[in-house]
Amino acid sequence: MESAVDITENGNGLVIPQNYKKLHRLNEDHLYHLALDTQKDDLEKMFGDVRFVCFGGQPSRMEKFSALVAEELKIYDHEKDGDRPKNYAAGTDRYSIHKVGPVLSVSHGIGIPSLSVVFNEIIKLVYYAKCKDVEFFRIGTCGGVGLEPGTVVVTEKAVDGEMNPYYKLSVLGKPVKRLAKVDQSLMESLLKCSEPDDEFKTVKGTTLCADDFYEGQARLDGAFCEYEEEDKMKFLQELKKKGVCNIEMESLGFLAMCHYAGVKGAVACVTLLDRLKEDTLSCDLSMLKKWQERPQNIVLRHIKKKLNNH
Amino acid sequence: MESAVDITENGNGLVIPQNYKKLHRLNEDHLYHLALDTQKDDLEKMFGDVRFVCFGGQPSRMEKFSALVAEELKIYDHEKDGDRPKNYAAGTDRYSIHKVGPVLSVSHGIGIPSLSVVFNEIIKLVYYAKCKDVEFFRIGTCGGVGLEPGTVVVTEKAVDGEMNPYYKLSVLGKPVKRLAKVDQSLMESLLKCSEPDDEFKTVKGTTLCADDFYEGQARLDGAFCEYEEEDKMKFLQELKKKGVCNIEMESLGFLAMCHYAGVKGAVACVTLLDRLKEDTLSCDLSMLKKWQERPQNIVLRHIKKKLNNH
Repeated sequence: MESAVDITENGNGLVIPQNYKKLHRLNEDHLYHLALDTQKDDLEKMFGDVRFVCFGGQPSRMEKFSALVAEELKIYDHEKDGDRPKNYAAGTDRYSIHKVGPVLSVSHGIGIPSLSVVFNEIIKLVYYAKCKDVEFFRIGTCGGVGLEPGTVVVTEKAVDGEMNPYYKLSVLGKPVKRLAKVDQSLMESLLKCSEPDDEFKTVKGTTLCADDFYEGQARLDGAFCEYEEEDKMKFLQELKKKGVCNIEMESLGFLAMCHYAGVKGAVACVTLLDRLKEDTLSCDLSMLKKWQERPQNIVLRHIKKKLNNH
Repeated sequence: MESAVDITENGNGLVIPQNYKKLHRLNEDHLYHLALDTQKDDLEKMFGDVRFVCFGGQPSRMEKFSALVAEELKIYDHEKDGDRPKNYAAGTDRYSIHKVGPVLSVSHGIGIPSLSVVFNEIIKLVYYAKCKDVEFFRIGTCGGVGLEPGTVVVTEKAVDGEMNPYYKLSVLGKPVKRLAKVDQSLMESLLKCSEPDDEFKTVKGTTLCADDFYEGQARLDGAFCEYEEEDKMKFLQELKKKGVCNIEMESLGFLAMCHYAGVKGAVACVTLLDRLKEDTLSCDLSMLKKWQERPQNIVLRHIKKKLNNH
């Protein structure tokens, strides 16, 4: 369950994939789901200065985040496609990649399997690009458990739908468990980026990572539902007692893969509703979109601090 | 493990979600990840004539499929956005929905969790739209096991990475297993759509549904890999002995959810490579894109036959 490569020990801060020996033997590595390639693309030139990789579900949200990065870091010389930041993965519609200065913004879709594909290819990308001292973030949305909607939750511990703190996968037909260990210093650093004037709270807590949006999250409004309102409330109240603050669909895999890769990673998500009160998201999309910027701002404050300290 | 609602028994062929009693109590149902809504959208008018729902991973591929449907069924009066078929889910970038006559084309992203979200909302959509006698298809791409690349595999049985034939999820903190039972008549009908002049073979076989593209599919070129070439080959040869013809990432959840919903469903995927020979997809994207039309054509032939018989 331990990290195979510890970048703090390899000394120079490079991200070295656990599998670098086999990758080294490849003449060409085609990052198929990103439409990038070690032969046709000069990955070191394109991405060598990346120090922060920010993942989020939707391409449009991550593109907007990239525009916010440009504004906040006052970086205006990034590559563009018309008025918009360039999408480096434009050769596919599976994922998107935008880059502004040292910040890469990557979409991961919904759920751990979708995340795992792009995570593998991004680890290879930062390896081939020889990026140093890279930090990974997932910046997302979630349902809150007993929190004011609009609150930002920084994940202190991630668990699956049965409260197990590890990511399960099958390798060569056998079950494998990987611990989702949170990088304490990075988590604390994000929490310190909360400001007294913020219109919202930033808290830490346990994140339940579900494999489904409806039954997996005890919603009553999916196509399938064999339980009643009281079963749902009992389950959610129990989660609250156990320290679960929010529910989403990627944190467990994200933190487990970061830990396994030896990369510092943290998760910050905004709660779009309080699941103790409702199942259905408000239709006030403009408000929801404004809230989505809250965890983005928390991570951006951290990035600014890090850049100013160097 | 049995289907909760059997549409052959409800008589009128309507898709009735297992959860229709709770849905009935909602004043408004917001299909959040499709950006559609029972209040603002007249779903019955928009989608009431749908009889075939075709799912596939990528939005662009499903849009092209929709154009192929228009051509093959000679339907030219479908709603358009310029030259392109209209995307009914254009209010979000999570999924896409195109419609040409009785055929809906829906993107599901990568992996079962991503599929499960859109599957729930599509079941609700066809329910609110009062669609009758609907059939669901997943039309995808996959890795083959001992098959000529470009072969179409119709799934006879779907299994997870440990050869279990059920979809596992956690509901209210407890593990639940749902059998991925294939609709035999629909599978046989697809197999009969193979034609002697086809440049490719269409076969049936067991599909391994992995939760990851790299380690979950015994690839050696991911960021993570703790096994060697000989371990991989031993695993893949064993799969072949057990009847596994192809590997992808959604069939198990798709077939289990179809069976649980009481909807006829089938999976047809084209093999893009032979995993007994290689891990990496060819860079000849134009050839791969041409191959992607093969399972689309198989399903379209079935659709044409069904429409001509009524």
